Formats: sequence, structure tokens, C-alpha cells
Amino acid sequence: MNGSKITFLPYQKSIWAPPGIKIIELARMLNINIVSSCGGRGKCGKCKVLVEKGREGLNPPSESERKFLSPEEIKEGWRLACTISPQAATEIVIKVPEISLKDLKIQTRGADLSVGINPVIKKYVLELSSPLLGNNLSLEELLRRRLEEVYGLYGTRMGYEALKQLSMIWADLQPNELITLIIWDGKEILSVERGDTSDNLYGVAVDIGTTKVACFLMDLNEGRVLSVSSSSNPQGIFGEDVMSRVAFAMKGKNNLVRLQESVVECINRLLDDCCEKAGLSNEDIYDCCVVGNTCMLHLFLGISPKSLAFSPYWPVIRGGVNLKAGEFRPALRINPNGTIYVMPSIAGFVGGDNVAVQLACNCFVPDKSVKLILDIGTNTEIVLADKKGIAVCSCASGPAFEGMHIKCGIRAVSGAIDMVSIDPKTKEVRYHTIGEGKPIGICGSGLIDAIAGLINAGLLNKNGTFNVI
Amino acid sequence: MNGSKITFLPYQKSIWAPPGIKIIELARMLNINIVSSCGGRGKCGKCKVLVEKGREGLNPPSESERKFLSPEEIKEGWRLACTISPQAATEIVIKVPEISLKDLKIQTRGADLSVGINPVIKKYVLELSSPLLGNNLSLEELLRRRLEEVYGLYGTRMGYEALKQLSMIWADLQPNELITLIIWDGKEILSVERGDTSDNLYGVAVDIGTTKVACFLMDLNEGRVLSVSSSSNPQGIFGEDVMSRVAFAMKGKNNLVRLQESVVECINRLLDDCCEKAGLSNEDIYDCCVVGNTCMLHLFLGISPKSLAFSPYWPVIRGGVNLKAGEFRPALRINPNGTIYVMPSIAGFVGGDNVAVQLACNCFVPDKSVKLILDIGTNTEIVLADKKGIAVCSCASGPAFEGMHIKCGIRAVSGAIDMVSIDPKTKEVRYHTIGEGKPIGICGSGLIDAIAGLINAGLLNKNGTFNVI
Repeated sequence: MNGSKITFLPYQKSIWAPPGIKIIELARMLNINIVSSCGGRGKCGKCKVLVEKGREGLNPPSESERKFLSPEEIKEGWRLACTISPQAATEIVIKVPEISLKDLKIQTRGADLSVGINPVIKKYVLELSSPLLGNNLSLEELLRRRLEEVYGLYGTRMGYEALKQLSMIWADLQPNELITLIIWDGKEILSVERGDTSDNLYGVAVDIGTTKVACFLMDLNEGRVLSVSSSSNPQGIFGEDVMSRVAFAMKGKNNLVRLQESVVECINRLLDDCCEKAGLSNEDIYDCCVVGNTCMLHLFLGISPKSLAFSPYWPVIRGGVNLKAGEFRPALRINPNGTIYVMPSIAGFVGGDNVAVQLACNCFVPDKSVKLILDIGTNTEIVLADKKGIAVCSCASGPAFEGMHIKCGIRAVSGAIDMVSIDPKTKEVRYHTIGEGKPIGICGSGLIDAIAGLINAGLLNKNGTFNVI
Repeated sequence: MNGSKITFLPYQKSIWAPPGIKIIELARMLNINIVSSCGGRGKCGKCKVLVEKGREGLNPPSESERKFLSPEEIKEGWRLACTISPQAATEIVIKVPEISLKDLKIQTRGADLSVGINPVIKKYVLELSSPLLGNNLSLEELLRRRLEEVYGLYGTRMGYEALKQLSMIWADLQPNELITLIIWDGKEILSVERGDTSDNLYGVAVDIGTTKVACFLMDLNEGRVLSVSSSSNPQGIFGEDVMSRVAFAMKGKNNLVRLQESVVECINRLLDDCCEKAGLSNEDIYDCCVVGNTCMLHLFLGISPKSLAFSPYWPVIRGGVNLKAGEFRPALRINPNGTIYVMPSIAGFVGGDNVAVQLACNCFVPDKSVKLILDIGTNTEIVLADKKGIAVCSCASGPAFEGMHIKCGIRAVSGAIDMVSIDPKTKEVRYHTIGEGKPIGICGSGLIDAIAGLINAGLLNKNGTFNVI
């Protein structure tokens, strides 16, 4: 045999692998998603696995494993999945504990707010009457004149791809045959289709979260969601939080390309799925609107996010970005003559998703109400809006929800300390664990309790420093 | 041996070829350019060659050869090079007479008119000072503000490719390092370069004629021609005149693509040559301005020219076409962030080359003079301009210059009848041949003489019909 057979428990899934491939990557190939907050750099210690068989076939424990694992754990066979790989042909059995697993659930349903239907892409049906002798016009001018006469639409321009289509369609157009123009924002003719296709007008909304990606296929005539598809953001293997991904993007020349390709390929799979569910073809989609936090939008566009990593955390671009699908690389699987609109961001850590939610909640139309919007994710944004203005602030919430950068931090799984109280007089500590068993770590609510208790007991001051008692 | 050895005389050039490839194409591979007015369809009879050896290895004479060649000529071994190909492995010797050769001479020098230097592409050098804490801007906004402060250039927008470049350059920009912005028409930032590169600003002018293509590499800072390169238009193998090429484009779905690819590939070779002569790289070229007749511009753009073939001979597009080099396919070898500008045309048979010559001759700035412009080519355009307006007309001149559609028509080569006179009384015909030898055909000036003589002698009426005497 030329490789090692790796079996993952409790799944009983096996894979043959050549030497040198990391266990965390082999698990991912089998759709076993092991947590990797640091992006597989051995820096978070979250990817603990137990080697039940074949320890001798793996590389010896690394420095980072000695940091995150106790000597007892190492003795028992615990390892970090991102630091180990088979070294020689052998059989290895790995047990993945629940605590090291991602159990991702993606929320794609929400309250439907009433909005007027006014898509940026519209269709216009025309009869392209035969040109008349006696004046020197072009087919393109004739078409634009017809738009003025029939629809009162003045000042349109015709895109290059639409010109080519017009020339081919005209070449065998039948008398009285109708054609349909796809026009962006009442200004640019993007595409020409034979016949009256105005009943079919579709767009897609894409939400790129740090952890998850969701696509919503819309009927733009009716303003109705036709299908939804979502998945985890595959950039997670390069780092779970925004900063890890920025660090990865800065580390090598090709890394930015890999990050962009991985999210675009993910969106393409979701688009295929949405279209299949709705019985449409990807070519039917003429508009794609993309939201996400500022870093995700930079990575989607292939723009280096390095400036987001340093004070004053400026983005490269804040304004909305309008692109022809045909000029975007790697290709997004919508109609190549369609458009991609990336929502504007507000700041380095208040992105287009926040602008979208403000739009959806009518924050830009001031009324007497005071609005509070909480967008709680890997990063949390809070919006407070009234008639005088809108204030937004942003803060990482990964540490609270995922135990990131907290040595004993874990998510709210069985065994997590979720409540803590400290007696101000005796300083006695009491705690509660989820499932009421032996504690294995502390989760977000436990951390908040612990900090509150430490302050109440006079053990911690407002700078976060322990008081000497 | 697996193929035939074909030798062309008087060149003594040989080529090995598998069965089925036309002799005219084999000659072209050896840079022997045999005339083909009909585009190799056996319809013009201009590609006569003499088979000196290996007649039995060729296909038997076709119907079109029997039409254009006399039984004696066929007996002697004369064939049409576009209808014959080797059938079996044999040795064939072909003599190409001078009359069947293209002896193309391309005029690329002319009078230099004085014009102001105002290129559409300009460079702006900036120091991108570090962003300051305390306001929420983006690098892109900072850059555009600097353009306003330093150059008074307001309302610019930043192209997508330039955004990506900015993000990469900023990622390792040194303090006080300069950057150079390439800006189109004072409006769109196309590209960002490190350092001060403002001394290098290059563009190229391309003239696509039906028969010839010429490129002029320009220094846009100094308004100086740096190098020139020209070649025959390789679309000639698909038809020598505009109408043959339109017919070819309409004949098959892929033909339009072949026509476009062949001229773009030709321009790319000329661009390479121009850059090599001037010691520049193709990436240094940020602007490409293309002129040509309306059909050539349609074919360059990959737009079907079918509507040019039918009354009222409307083009698909008359207005100028502005493209990003990166969105143009097949790729033109200039900087992908540069622009391609295709000059506007006036009508189906008055193209962008005519607009360019009117511009160069200041026709759009009326003065007291009356201007007459003659553009004599495969198609001839005549412009008459005064302060009241500009009139243009157009007419095919291929028949006069190349003998197209005239059974005995030839170009002004040795043996061509170039002068004709008819005695009005006796109706006796006298003629003169170039070189004073035996006549082999009649050229343009002979045709005009003959028609004038026929009219003077009362033999032809003004409708072009022969009078019955």
C-alpha cells in the first residue's frame, strides 16, 4: 500500500491518504468539520482529537501541542488535528470529540418586511421595425429611438455585448418579431433577447458572512423569494474570524486569490442549487446583489484587506461597486451580461450587510420612532437610529460565542460553565455547567458572569486588572 | 512519404502538405500572396497558376475553372489556385505568374498636420499620505480627495481593476513613496502604478483598411510617432472586398469569429513589432484608437455586418465605442486596464477612417476655405466641406483598381490595356498596353477610356446600355 488509511470515529468514515496531509484536512474531505479558529496554524488549540490507533505513524507532538495539551493528555493520545499528519504507510484511527466539532446551523428565514418592487434591472419589449431608406441611422440608434417613443426612456446607451447580440438577432429577425431589452437603471442596455421574455426577470441576493454564506433567488417582477440555499463559508479553513483571514491574505501573494476563489466557488454552488430548486437556468439571473461585512466584501472582490488590519482600519473602498458579470473573475455563474452590485460599507468593521439591514428597517427615512438594530454574529454591529441621525458601532463577538482567544473558552456545549457567581464577602466561587456535568470549559454567558462577579467582589478594576487584595 | 511536396516557381519555395489543402493556402503559408478577389470561392478567376509538374496529383478541373479558363489554357496546365489541392502523395510544381500576385505596397507616411496634444489618457502623480484616525474614509476616497486638492480634478471614479491594484500597492507602500494614477478623460481612474511614471505615456493608432492594416505607436506626452508597422489585412483570404467579407461572415456561425480573430491577431503582431522597434513593452500602451471603414470596424468588434449588405445599408452602430481593453475578446495586447476607442462612423459606407481624416483636416472647424478630401482605396470616399456643412459620398473602387467583377479586369500590371480610344466616325478601336506588349486584360484607366470612347462614339447611352446602331 502507498498511503495510510485514516478512520474517523464515531463516524466510521475512512480515507486513504499519502504522507504529509494534515488530519484536519482529511476530516474535511469526509465532511467532518473540525473547529479551527486560528485557520490551522496551531494557535487556538480548538481542534483536539484522540488518536486511538496508529500514534507511531504520526509526527511527534509539536511545541504548540505542548502548549495547549497537558502532559497527561499527550500521554492519553490527544493531539491537535491541524498539526498532525501521517508520516508513513500505516493505519490510524482518530476519535473526534463533540467539543471539537462545528455544529453549524444557518438561519435563512426571517421577518418579511414590506418593500416596494423597483429592481435596478428591468425588461422592455419592442418591435424593431425595419429601417427606412433616406436617413443615415444605425440599428442601435433605431432601437434607442423606439425606447423613447414607446417607453419615454431617454438617454440610454447600449453595452458592447448587447450590440453584438443585436447584430446577430437582427441578422435573422422575422417581420413583426418582438425583442426584449434588459436595461440597467433605465440607462444601459445590457442584453437583447428574442421574443417577449418580460415575464422572466430574476435576481439573486447574496449574504457573505464570516462563517456562513446564503443565497436568495428572487422573482424581480413579483418581489418574491423563489428559493434559498446556504452553506458554511469555505474560507473558514484559512481562518475562522476576520482577522485570521486578513492575516492569511497578507501572508502570501496567492492567498488573496485562494480566498476569493473559495467564496466565489461557494456562491456558484449555491446559485446552481437555487436555480435547480426554482427550475431556472443560471443564465436567467441578470442581477446579483452582494452584502457582507467589509472584509468579506473585499475578499469577494479580490481586494487586499490589509488596510483593515492596521489603525485606523480603513477599507480600500466604502462606496458600492457596480460590475458587469462578464468582467468579474473568477466568473460568477449568472448571465454574463448581468450586473453584480456590492453594497456600500460604512467603515472597516461596519459593512454592506449593516447598510442593507438599515435599508430594510427604513433607517434612512427618519420618523418619530427610535430604532435599535442588533446584528449578532462573529462580529456584532449595533445600530441606534432616530430622526436626528444614525449611530453604529461594531465589536468582535467571536470570543464570547466561540471562546476565541480565551484559553478555556468553548461554545455553549454540554460541559460548558454557563453561570458563575462570586460571593462579595467570602470570595467563594459557584458555577453551573450545561448538562450539569464536570466542567470542560467556559462559554460566553459564563465569562460575562465571571467578570461581573469579579468586579462586584472588588477583585477586578475597571481597567481589567486584578486588584491586589 | 505521407504528403505531397509542392514547389512554387519562380520562388523555388517548397512545402510538404497532406491531401486536401488548397494550393492558394499553401502558397500563403510560404508568404506567396496569390490574388483572391472572391475569397477563395472560385468566383473571380484571378488566381490563375500553371501546373508544370504533377497535374495527375490534383483534382480534375471544376465547373468554375471551365468558366474562367479556356479549353486551351486547361490543356496547357492552367488552373485556379483556390480550387485545386493535392489528392495523393506526389510531387507538384506550380508556376505563379506575376499577374496572379498581390504586389502590395502600404503607404504609412503622410503629411504631418499640426494638432494640439490632448490625449484622453493622462497620468497624475500623488503622494498617498497615511490615513488619519478619527474619520471613516476609505483609501479610495483619500485618493480622490488628493486628486481634488493637488490637481483640482473633481468627480473622478475608480475602476475595479485600479481598486485591486491600489489595495496591493498600499499593502507595502513606503512612507513618502509616490504613486501614479492613469486617468481616462479626467473621469475614471483606470490603473495605479508605483513611483512617478508620468514620463511614460503611450498610445497606439490603428487603421484597419480592407486591404491593409497599419499601427502607429505614439508618445502621448510629446505627440510624436515612435514607430510604425503595417501588413496586409489577413481577412483577405476570406474575401478581398467588403461585400465578400460580409457574405463570408453571414455564411456560417463561426465565420464572424474567424474574421475578428484574424484582424485582432494581425494588430497584435503589429503592436509587438511597434513596441520592439520603440523599445517598449505592450503593457506600456494605455490607449488604442481604431479607425477603419464601417464594415472593418464591425468585424473588429465582432459585430455582425449583415445589415450593411441590404438596403438601406444601415450599420449596427455609428457612434464611437469605448471599451476597457480587459473586456475585449480576443485580447488586444495593450495594458489590460487601458482603453480601446473605436471612432464613430457616419454611415454604412462612410466609416471612422473618414471621420478621422475630417478631424485631421479641421472640417469640423468651419472657415472660409472649401475643402475636398479624396480617400481612394478599395472603397473611395469623397468629402466636400465648407462653412455651410460637410457632404460625403462613397463608392466601390475595387472594380477600377483591381478589375473586380470585370471579366478581363486586371490591375495596372505589364500587359494591361491602360489607354483606349474609339474613332467616333469609323468606330475603330485603338489601345495601348503597359509595357507595350500583347494585351492580357484591361485596367482602371483603360476602362474609363473605353467607356468615354463608347459614349463619344454614340455606342453607349447614359444608362449604360449599348445603343443598337
